[in-house]
Amino acid sequence: MATTSITVEEKPLVRYLLGRADDALVLGHRLSEWTGRAPMLEEELALANIGLDLIGQARSLYQYAAQCEGMGHDEDDFAYLRDPSQYLNVLLVEQPNGDFAHTIVRQVLYSAFADPYWRAVMQAPDQTLAAIAAKSEKESAYHLRHASEWLIRLGDGTPESHRRAQAALDALWPYAGELFDADTGPLDPSTLRPGWERTLAGLLTRSTLVRPADWVQRGGRAGRHSEHLGHLLAAMQHLPRSFPGATW
Amino acid sequence: MATTSITVEEKPLVRYLLGRADDALVLGHRLSEWTGRAPMLEEELALANIGLDLIGQARSLYQYAAQCEGMGHDEDDFAYLRDPSQYLNVLLVEQPNGDFAHTIVRQVLYSAFADPYWRAVMQAPDQTLAAIAAKSEKESAYHLRHASEWLIRLGDGTPESHRRAQAALDALWPYAGELFDADTGPLDPSTLRPGWERTLAGLLTRSTLVRPADWVQRGGRAGRHSEHLGHLLAAMQHLPRSFPGATW
Repeated sequence: MATTSITVEEKPLVRYLLGRADDALVLGHRLSEWTGRAPMLEEELALANIGLDLIGQARSLYQYAAQCEGMGHDEDDFAYLRDPSQYLNVLLVEQPNGDFAHTIVRQVLYSAFADPYWRAVMQAPDQTLAAIAAKSEKESAYHLRHASEWLIRLGDGTPESHRRAQAALDALWPYAGELFDADTGPLDPSTLRPGWERTLAGLLTRSTLVRPADWVQRGGRAGRHSEHLGHLLAAMQHLPRSFPGATW
Repeated sequence: MATTSITVEEKPLVRYLLGRADDALVLGHRLSEWTGRAPMLEEELALANIGLDLIGQARSLYQYAAQCEGMGHDEDDFAYLRDPSQYLNVLLVEQPNGDFAHTIVRQVLYSAFADPYWRAVMQAPDQTLAAIAAKSEKESAYHLRHASEWLIRLGDGTPESHRRAQAALDALWPYAGELFDADTGPLDPSTLRPGWERTLAGLLTRSTLVRPADWVQRGGRAGRHSEHLGHLLAAMQHLPRSFPGATW
């Protein structure tokens, strides 16, 4: 596969846009993996629609990255022709779906960051980025509401659903810290941490769940990924890499 | 898995609704299988959105079937707790995705039927059914346009894309006949065949493709399915059957 990889011109803005786009694409794909496997038709449609929102956000960000890079690449080149080590998403979003509780907890941790993040970026002087942020914020507000309602239902539900929700929280919490690492974007993400902590504290109380200790897994923004991303990309990129430029 | 299967009260209206719902659910799932595997982000989103439209149509039809059946079943029972032999979809929609040309040809054959079908059912005296038909027709009009444009691009494209489109047409055409078989619905589907033939003739001319000879594969509406449906349902039903009533 390596022979058809592209080399990205890593200007700071391009690198920033790719990181945010990769977050959305990888998480969008994870959610779409539920299609045909969800426990209820209604929830299957909800998860799939959230996944499509995120893949749509990724498209907009890749298109803008391509324009800023100015090397003749397009959105599909970024999605399909970069190796795992060129992906700049946080490790949180590449974590496997696990059971439904894992999917919901991952979504809560990410959306509770993404929603205020995009709201802040709407104020960026870069008009293209501000427009992408405005659309993304509207979507992420719904994503956060959806996942929060489920977290409360699961945490404050049966003993079994509570046990699974707490296990998912314990497993995924260490990955949340990376969301707040500095990057080359218009906003220092660490400024959003106090608000995120308040949101989570309120949610965990209502869910009767216990906040895990801090222990931060990081490396994704620097291209150091878990094996999970390799498997996801292998499936996602197989076709475009086998038939470069073809519509098969 | 059989232990948790449901028995359906097969009133004629219920049986009719399930057949149409199964068409939409199975085809919707097939399209969603492209997510993470499509050759372009734009097309991945388009196929996924069409898939979600169809799964949404299935939901509406299952809900109405549950109401008409009056046995306390719900939409999820119909989707997840029927065995392959209880599925009443036409064989066309369960055919595997194959390459992109197979997916597009399957979509053209189905949508060229579904769009005028739902338009006719909008006139049904049954107001619930007429409302489902109105929503479905609006969606299927777009589905037909999307697939038709691709068929022309592929058929009238490169020698390789033409070859693949013709191969897909030859493979799938035999399954189109079953769409026109009589069922217990408000409309004899065979009355739509002349219009469907005209639509296809025009499309094949513009695609420079040759109409295959008629040879009809049938049995799906009677619950006689290919092994493909068994595999699709095994994946789709695994979770709800393993944890009945759970949200995992």
